[in-house]
Amino acid sequence: MGLDRSRHVPTEPVIVAGNGLLDRRVFLKSGAALAAAFSGYTVASSARAEPLADPPWSRESGAVTPPLQTPSRFEQHVTRTLSNPKNETRTSHGRTPHHLLNGTFTPNSLHFTINHSGIPDIDPGQHRLVIHGLVKQPLSFTVDALSRYPMVSRMAFVECGGNSAPMFSNEPVQASVQALHGLASCAEWTGVPLSTLLEETGIDPRAKWFIAEGADSLALHRSVPVRKALDDAMIALYQNGERLMPGNGYPMRLLLPGWEGNMNVKFLRRIKLVEEPAMSYYEGRTYSQILPGGKSYRFYFLQEVKSFITHPSFGLKLDRPGYYEISGIAYSGDGRISRVMVSADGGRTWGEAALQGPVLPKAFTRFRMGWRWDGKPATLLSRAWDEAGNVQPLRREFVAARGETRTPVTNPQAFVNQHYNSITSWAVDGRGEVRHVYV
Amino acid sequence: MGLDRSRHVPTEPVIVAGNGLLDRRVFLKSGAALAAAFSGYTVASSARAEPLADPPWSRESGAVTPPLQTPSRFEQHVTRTLSNPKNETRTSHGRTPHHLLNGTFTPNSLHFTINHSGIPDIDPGQHRLVIHGLVKQPLSFTVDALSRYPMVSRMAFVECGGNSAPMFSNEPVQASVQALHGLASCAEWTGVPLSTLLEETGIDPRAKWFIAEGADSLALHRSVPVRKALDDAMIALYQNGERLMPGNGYPMRLLLPGWEGNMNVKFLRRIKLVEEPAMSYYEGRTYSQILPGGKSYRFYFLQEVKSFITHPSFGLKLDRPGYYEISGIAYSGDGRISRVMVSADGGRTWGEAALQGPVLPKAFTRFRMGWRWDGKPATLLSRAWDEAGNVQPLRREFVAARGETRTPVTNPQAFVNQHYNSITSWAVDGRGEVRHVYV
Repeated sequence: MGLDRSRHVPTEPVIVAGNGLLDRRVFLKSGAALAAAFSGYTVASSARAEPLADPPWSRESGAVTPPLQTPSRFEQHVTRTLSNPKNETRTSHGRTPHHLLNGTFTPNSLHFTINHSGIPDIDPGQHRLVIHGLVKQPLSFTVDALSRYPMVSRMAFVECGGNSAPMFSNEPVQASVQALHGLASCAEWTGVPLSTLLEETGIDPRAKWFIAEGADSLALHRSVPVRKALDDAMIALYQNGERLMPGNGYPMRLLLPGWEGNMNVKFLRRIKLVEEPAMSYYEGRTYSQILPGGKSYRFYFLQEVKSFITHPSFGLKLDRPGYYEISGIAYSGDGRISRVMVSADGGRTWGEAALQGPVLPKAFTRFRMGWRWDGKPATLLSRAWDEAGNVQPLRREFVAARGETRTPVTNPQAFVNQHYNSITSWAVDGRGEVRHVYV
Repeated sequence: MGLDRSRHVPTEPVIVAGNGLLDRRVFLKSGAALAAAFSGYTVASSARAEPLADPPWSRESGAVTPPLQTPSRFEQHVTRTLSNPKNETRTSHGRTPHHLLNGTFTPNSLHFTINHSGIPDIDPGQHRLVIHGLVKQPLSFTVDALSRYPMVSRMAFVECGGNSAPMFSNEPVQASVQALHGLASCAEWTGVPLSTLLEETGIDPRAKWFIAEGADSLALHRSVPVRKALDDAMIALYQNGERLMPGNGYPMRLLLPGWEGNMNVKFLRRIKLVEEPAMSYYEGRTYSQILPGGKSYRFYFLQEVKSFITHPSFGLKLDRPGYYEISGIAYSGDGRISRVMVSADGGRTWGEAALQGPVLPKAFTRFRMGWRWDGKPATLLSRAWDEAGNVQPLRREFVAARGETRTPVTNPQAFVNQHYNSITSWAVDGRGEVRHVYV
């Protein structure tokens, strides 16, 4: 492979599991072991250097600097996919293209959104947040008033309770990770702790819940236990440094780190402290998960520990045998990711992936695993653990507890089940094509 | 102030320095102390709740979900400021509006850029990175080839060596923090460690430097010590999760965390290992800082420890006396920020600010300080320390060592001095207006 043997003494990289999974220490500048991992790959795709040609863009002055940067025209395929592009009177989804991204969070342009009555065009100068009900002193806050309070910033994922709904099909839906898992994103949110505002209003001891209501025309509202308000709930004003995106709740939203996306009420205009939950549409119907035995979950808030591989995945192709990085996203509403295991042989053997630091609670964690693909069929899985001791369930465990849809359905919108957090498996065939399979 | 005294027993918040600076523990849910800090402010600006009115956006269906989200039309003023909007044959700057942002990093649309011959329109399928010179095996890499290597993600600021050049004026330039310090931004960068690629090419022991060259028509090139390549240099492919912005080096750039922005060569097409530096235009001329005694700095790579207050700052107004959060950005090319001190009385007394965690090396750290403004004139300063023991110099110390321009100049472009890292001071007058002053 052209390496100078006097400097490099390639040793076999440490294989930690079947079908070529490499020890995660390959990410710690392992030198010779890393170089050897590339064996059979380097010469084929990293060509010997030829004299540099001057392409057109090196021979002429370039374009003007714009006030706001946007991606290259060669990245126009990197967009959210839309479920309701004609804005009919129903819910609109915009899904994040995880297979085209890398790193640990989602740029604002690509953050997923779900809106049930379109995106309101809110004048922040007119918007008010009222906190009332079982408080000592009802108060009303403008955006400017909130901006003077002590703020905090934190990374947090938000995930729709219906994310991954196509995984309830009893046949694996052939679709990209964007179609399967695109209703989860991660951002740095900055705003005022809700507990700070409740210090000002005071709390009547009878208050056990609060109802959060949005200023959208649906007046979407959800019931939230007061204990979450006193824990880590935030009135978010900024998303990744700038003001919230209109689809993510501009000018302010409730952020409940780790809890069902729908509860993170956008366009927040009201917090009413009450004794009992409201039993609103989105808690009495949509997010009351029906179980196989006929019972249902109610107030099932937590987005549980989960992971999926984004590279490679459906829609991406492996060009030739050799070294690849397997990478993906893991997260848990219950704290930090503590471990991600990866299998390349359909779950028979597993190796531990490297976790990209800093590993933060209730935020996306990128995991990475070296893999030397020998060109033969392989099936890739990931499985995550969190610091609270939870483990992502195997599919057979999950189906036994939560059920699956009887007939294969190809329209991801058709699924009504919620809170899928089991494993996603990708089968790579001998041509490097990737299919979605159940293991 | 309407708080229920049976629950809240407001005590005076702890004043830690002159003119109303509050103990940073106010950020640790300090309850009664926090509530008391708002005294005299709450009733004035957080009005008693009235019955909620339904504004127009609550009465009609909203807008369609777009493939790519953009900010609200009410945020159209949040843009970069441009030095060359007609794209004349000279350098183009786009400056980050720090006074309008919050959190710890910069969204891609607002990341600063400097381009000396416009922004090239590069086809990533045609682009090549060649590593040659004093190597054992020259190699050429496509974007796709690099995408198969083990990657890393890290937060890192990039700062132009000429950022804050207006601070060399001997009269304080009346301009926003965007005009003064807008040539620094922070992002999560994902890519391949340069050391990994040099493992593949091998390194001739005579190689002490490498020359990095861009594919822009200027072929901008800089000399970098090989030791930085073996430390934390990266070939960055992604910026905040998505592919690099065109103005930030699409499809790939050199990232040298903590070092002068100009060296982080964009549109990277060549790395040539050599024995001696190239003495190129941007190292032999522009970035060889001339000192008062006539000598000059050469190869002055490090962006030293620095901080500035963004809220409040020039262009933002304080409406009335009461509680405010003073916040700003601190960073050091030499590691993590260890401490930020804030003064509200022109540097006579100082209090320690809260640092927003996680505090990461060579990345923006947001600092926050509670402040109860009594409505009288006050002068706000911040001063940062890093974990390597460096401290941001006072202005008199900095001017003694590095000089200042003799005549007041209002055009920020006119300054040729580099690497300003001293203190920025904002004077608040009795009307809440903010001016730039020297202390």
